[in-house]
Amino acid sequence: MYLPHQRWPELGEYVANESLAVVPLGSTEQHGPHLPEGTDHMIAEALAREASERTGYLCTPPITVGVSSHHRQFHGTMWVEPSVFRDYVESLSRNLTYHGIDRIVYVNAHGGNVAHLREVGQRLHDDGTAYAIEWMWDESIPELIEEVFETPGPHGGPKETAMIMHLAEELVREDRLEDARDGGVTFDADAARVHGATTFYDCIDNSPNGVFGDQTDATPEIGAELFEAATEQLVSLLEWLDEQPFADLMPDPHVDPQPGSGRERDGAR
Amino acid sequence: MYLPHQRWPELGEYVANESLAVVPLGSTEQHGPHLPEGTDHMIAEALAREASERTGYLCTPPITVGVSSHHRQFHGTMWVEPSVFRDYVESLSRNLTYHGIDRIVYVNAHGGNVAHLREVGQRLHDDGTAYAIEWMWDESIPELIEEVFETPGPHGGPKETAMIMHLAEELVREDRLEDARDGGVTFDADAARVHGATTFYDCIDNSPNGVFGDQTDATPEIGAELFEAATEQLVSLLEWLDEQPFADLMPDPHVDPQPGSGRERDGAR
Amino acid sequence: MYLPHQRWPELGEYVANESLAVVPLGSTEQHGPHLPEGTDHMIAEALAREASERTGYLCTPPITVGVSSHHRQFHGTMWVEPSVFRDYVESLSRNLTYHGIDRIVYVNAHGGNVAHLREVGQRLHDDGTAYAIEWMWDESIPELIEEVFETPGPHGGPKETAMIMHLAEELVREDRLEDARDGGVTFDADAARVHGATTFYDCIDNSPNGVFGDQTDATPEIGAELFEAATEQLVSLLEWLDEQPFADLMPDPHVDPQPGSGRERDGAR
Amino acid sequence: MYLPHQRWPELGEYVANESLAVVPLGSTEQHGPHLPEGTDHMIAEALAREASERTGYLCTPPITVGVSSHHRQFHGTMWVEPSVFRDYVESLSRNLTYHGIDRIVYVNAHGGNVAHLREVGQRLHDDGTAYAIEWMWDESIPELIEEVFETPGPHGGPKETAMIMHLAEELVREDRLEDARDGGVTFDADAARVHGATTFYDCIDNSPNGVFGDQTDATPEIGAELFEAATEQLVSLLEWLDEQPFADLMPDPHVDPQPGSGRERDGAR
Amino acid sequence: MYLPHQRWPELGEYVANESLAVVPLGSTEQHGPHLPEGTDHMIAEALAREASERTGYLCTPPITVGVSSHHRQFHGTMWVEPSVFRDYVESLSRNLTYHGIDRIVYVNAHGGNVAHLREVGQRLHDDGTAYAIEWMWDESIPELIEEVFETPGPHGGPKETAMIMHLAEELVREDRLEDARDGGVTFDADAARVHGATTFYDCIDNSPNGVFGDQTDATPEIGAELFEAATEQLVSLLEWLDEQPFADLMPDPHVDPQPGSGRERDGAR
Amino acid sequence: MYLPHQRWPELGEYVANESLAVVPLGSTEQHGPHLPEGTDHMIAEALAREASERTGYLCTPPITVGVSSHHRQFHGTMWVEPSVFRDYVESLSRNLTYHGIDRIVYVNAHGGNVAHLREVGQRLHDDGTAYAIEWMWDESIPELIEEVFETPGPHGGPKETAMIMHLAEELVREDRLEDARDGGVTFDADAARVHGATTFYDCIDNSPNGVFGDQTDATPEIGAELFEAATEQLVSLLEWLDEQPFADLMPDPHVDPQPGSGRERDGAR
Repeated sequence: MYLPHQRWPELGEYVANESLAVVPLGSTEQHGPHLPEGTDHMIAEALAREASERTGYLCTPPITVGVSSHHRQFHGTMWVEPSVFRDYVESLSRNLTYHGIDRIVYVNAHGGNVAHLREVGQRLHDDGTAYAIEWMWDESIPELIEEVFETPGPHGGPKETAMIMHLAEELVREDRLEDARDGGVTFDADAARVHGATTFYDCIDNSPNGVFGDQTDATPEIGAELFEAATEQLVSLLEWLDEQPFADLMPDPHVDPQPGSGRERDGAR
Repeated sequence: MYLPHQRWPELGEYVANESLAVVPLGSTEQHGPHLPEGTDHMIAEALAREASERTGYLCTPPITVGVSSHHRQFHGTMWVEPSVFRDYVESLSRNLTYHGIDRIVYVNAHGGNVAHLREVGQRLHDDGTAYAIEWMWDESIPELIEEVFETPGPHGGPKETAMIMHLAEELVREDRLEDARDGGVTFDADAARVHGATTFYDCIDNSPNGVFGDQTDATPEIGAELFEAATEQLVSLLEWLDEQPFADLMPDPHVDPQPGSGRERDGAR
Repeated sequence: MYLPHQRWPELGEYVANESLAVVPLGSTEQHGPHLPEGTDHMIAEALAREASERTGYLCTPPITVGVSSHHRQFHGTMWVEPSVFRDYVESLSRNLTYHGIDRIVYVNAHGGNVAHLREVGQRLHDDGTAYAIEWMWDESIPELIEEVFETPGPHGGPKETAMIMHLAEELVREDRLEDARDGGVTFDADAARVHGATTFYDCIDNSPNGVFGDQTDATPEIGAELFEAATEQLVSLLEWLDEQPFADLMPDPHVDPQPGSGRERDGAR
Repeated sequence: MYLPHQRWPELGEYVANESLAVVPLGSTEQHGPHLPEGTDHMIAEALAREASERTGYLCTPPITVGVSSHHRQFHGTMWVEPSVFRDYVESLSRNLTYHGIDRIVYVNAHGGNVAHLREVGQRLHDDGTAYAIEWMWDESIPELIEEVFETPGPHGGPKETAMIMHLAEELVREDRLEDARDGGVTFDADAARVHGATTFYDCIDNSPNGVFGDQTDATPEIGAELFEAATEQLVSLLEWLDEQPFADLMPDPHVDPQPGSGRERDGAR
Repeated sequence: MYLPHQRWPELGEYVANESLAVVPLGSTEQHGPHLPEGTDHMIAEALAREASERTGYLCTPPITVGVSSHHRQFHGTMWVEPSVFRDYVESLSRNLTYHGIDRIVYVNAHGGNVAHLREVGQRLHDDGTAYAIEWMWDESIPELIEEVFETPGPHGGPKETAMIMHLAEELVREDRLEDARDGGVTFDADAARVHGATTFYDCIDNSPNGVFGDQTDATPEIGAELFEAATEQLVSLLEWLDEQPFADLMPDPHVDPQPGSGRERDGAR
Repeated sequence: MYLPHQRWPELGEYVANESLAVVPLGSTEQHGPHLPEGTDHMIAEALAREASERTGYLCTPPITVGVSSHHRQFHGTMWVEPSVFRDYVESLSRNLTYHGIDRIVYVNAHGGNVAHLREVGQRLHDDGTAYAIEWMWDESIPELIEEVFETPGPHGGPKETAMIMHLAEELVREDRLEDARDGGVTFDADAARVHGATTFYDCIDNSPNGVFGDQTDATPEIGAELFEAATEQLVSLLEWLDEQPFADLMPDPHVDPQPGSGRERDGAR
């Protein structure tokens, strides 16, 4: 159920019976010479809407601009400050609870958003407002990705290339796949640490053309396979979440002894 | 040129030569029993992309959730706090200037965003960062609207109904147009003042079903006419803006006499 | 009852029985070569105190500096950032509720404050703290203004000139009325739109001397007439507001079906 | 020169030649059963305008609501949060520099504002924007106050009573002076410390009727004497400030050795 | 009981029975050519831990960087903005209440922190969260300080020198005590006022080497005496605080008549 | 060189020649029944001071309270809100640059701080203020940790136990090591994902006693070995950082073509 396409009476029926929503989030940022800048939000929206359609759960419109300043040296990258992104997602999520939505899955396709979505989720969780968690498509199917690609690459690599080939093939510049591979690098963030420290801040510090991995391994068929596998994971997550008693999703109480319990027991004060 | 569909080398060519971008903004909020909640952002995106296609100017992805708390009593309405909305649009706009974009038209289709977009534009203008202005489609063609409808209504009325009929007819519940009209009201904000004061804050204070006007006057053909007329206005605005010398778009200097000029002239201090 | 002139026991009697206060707000900004910069806050204070005296309702001291950066190119214009203005008014208003004041009329005489006072009022309304509304004197008597002046002008024109002639004639430079008219312009904000967009941010963009309209039409007698008419409107508004049940001033509940009502009905979960 | 009473051409002449402004600030808060709640801002405005008139320096309109939550238990006390007060004063001051005003004296008559005005002054000073200092009338004439009163009291005592008797005698309830004295206390903040700590937060913790000292010692004649003496101090301060070279008012540079100076000297790097 | 040295089961026993904590705060800032920059936080931590050890009350780890921009011209001075300092202390304090700690003594050894700790304490007090007060060691023993030193000096003088001689003699450059005295000044902040105004913002405005007073009077023995005397004051304060009923530490109610009480009494509305 | 133990003249010599500082950060939070709550900040401070002593680089005092709300259900856990933590570290770091310190290593021993220190580092990096990076001790020696422990555990496990045994053996409750192991769990955050999502927010969701791993494997000797190995890594990192040209640490420029370059080349405009 795609919220922007519904009218309010239909949505009233939904919230009378359900409390779960899916919020797609991505970014608009460079993805190399071969992929469109909307890659992340297009993937997030496609997965969220597909899972929503299969399950009937509510899907909101996507948030298309996220935390991407580390890609800013490349043309077209859009971004907002991290604090602004967090506040936007928090405000939007908090207001959904007015309609009874208190279980949210942030369907995310941009690594730079992860820590910020976790922080928003923690805020909503800590004060008992809602239970909101981040889900990143490629972290739900790590084995499959390892299996189908030799060098997946963390950004703009074959896994994103295959997904966009599946979703919007006309936006992939297939004539530049070799350039993408040759002008970028094969990168391992852990290996790149200097005496244990991550020393870079910007993508361009590691890759001259902004991408990583071997994009020539990507095909629309693999993209379809990834899309199907990730959608299944997301559907399972939504079903799991819907089944949890709400109390189980809220913070545990303080461990014993409770503050002040000794004073009361002793009759002191 | 739709930014999310381009790759960074193409965008590099654009910003080498151009400095203008179009940012579509709307809302996701109730539009009565007959129209989808995405009405405003769908209209904004459609107009912005059409004008962008005709002219070649850059169009960013849409911002789909705006300032709509006054519609919150109706199911599905999404919103962010006004300060959050302003900061999100400002951050996104300010960062576009990193790529040389310093002329922005906010293509807006939601009245609740207007004052906030003006405030963001003023911030960017006052410190000389960029020239960003708000454009609302129905304010560009007031005569035509007056001509084609008897009671246009400020929200969810025949003008928005016709536009969505033109853009996505399957999302309009035509079987509810009479309900929309009969359950809503014909409303005149100026006439509703109490001794000069606007005394309501929420849409529901004035309309039990959230909409105004006579929706039964809407047809897809009128929608197409409105869309074409508004697109032409937007195209003309973009062309006008591109022609202005940047200095003319920036703040005027302080009027004479300049502060301290007397001291300098007198040799004092 | 002017709060700054009362002692706390008298104010205790007031709040035991009443819950309404009037807060005058204006600006300190250029009003052309002929009018004093305090024009707006002087008008607001005079009207608020007069209505307070006639009705016995509480009147706070005036807020004299508002949102006026768009007049900054002219000497003497004072202003605070919009967010600062909103927070100041909100904090002051919210704290009045500690004494039981939960109905507030912002008696305003500066157009640049309107959107911000509406936003503050909405904040207080949305969380059920208080009911605060903005009232602008000239919007309460549009017919009279149309009747007595040929070209009223939105700022520094004959209506404000007449008011100050009535309230503090010695502060009006009557020898400069013709200069004011000839150095300024007759301005129509709607007509000035470019393809539907408002393209200016500063007053100086439209008027070289900062004012609009034909000031030579103003007389103290007309000022007295305007003052009396506006005072009567304000008195009526205060009486209307005092009569409303508080619940009617607070937000309506969510429309049916209530969130979660279906689950309860079905015994689900 | 009272800014609100001037027109912009006159203010242009002022700022062409001068860079100094006086900003009166007070509070609107309980001052016992005998004094009006506007006591502090009335005193501040009277002193600021008198000194401005004698010297010709610019005086802005007063800020009438300050940091007074510690008086909130008494009816009528108005206040804003400290952070809001600081931001309002800072924004207003910072914007004055656009007109060349970069020397400001905050003429203050409320103890609760002092620390906050110092903080604002430090912000403006630290980044080289302006030199703004706080001046509190009774701290400029401590010997005279000690001489004329036996028990001055820090709030609502004879010194403020005498001042208001001088400025607006009709607002003093002289029939309640003995009540004020008898229902309040003689208070010494230093003596009230508990093992070195200030343990109270609210005025009511120390005084049941909100005031301190012996108000029966006050007369209009003493008020006139205090007013004259404090005005003379303020005039002297303004003249002193106007004479200082601006560079002397700005922060000193870092002490030697300058950071990095050794590297440069050694030719290192 | 030093919190960082305990394990959570031990702390559980504590909070079951107690509600008091001591938070040491100082600064890291220049203290002249002879004293280490950690002087203030070392003194605060030593006193807090000693009193904690003697009484068994909980002591948190120290906050070592405070509000010190007025010492920034001297090498090594660290500081945070005042608003950041307040928020850090407030957040830390507010979160302690989750464990039942609602009585806090800020053991402070830096004058520049005082106003900010008072503001934090007021926030916590005003909303009924906790009772937190500031205690500054030298203000608890003014007579003793007057007795043992001729010219104590407000910063870097003999009192702090003696304390560090007692606590960490190896960190005092005794060979520079005469330099400290001769290169600094004997300073009286009240005497330094200009017509009643405090005109300086930075320490360097008054002292070329950053310190005040005659440091050559300091000895480790005097330091031990001061330390013992201040510890005793702090112990007494903690015992006093523990004995107060919590309700007595919270804000008083509004004075009568209560807002709205007249309306209820009259049966109005 | 430990900043709090130095006097300003010594620090002047340092900053004349050097631009690097080490800032230790940890947390004060539950570390199970056996380890003290200061575990993280004690480890961070010990490593930072040791590396500072070996190399001569400047070490600031530690920040002892960080982002730990996810441990709040266990007694004694202290924390500040993430935004407050970031602002405190940013303000402190930014102000160090006033003394010429523009290379900072955050020596961190608390996983909950990592993302926030990265965000602060990015802010300082993006605007060219300073180069500040986060270093976490256990991430510098992953192979050694794998080698010496069978089940290291992410929090309160054998690696932290061994470190505190080495640094402050008296604070480890060795009699509770088996309880720590048996009451906690062996945990793998990746394995705990639900269909790819991290579904927990609090430590207590995964471990009833707050810790993970097998603590009985820890010995002081292993602690000494870890400490030495991590110190060596940190020393190497500091030396590496000192050798980098500052320009190499700052952001790369925008990739070509530069915005507007085409217009200039064409002589357009």
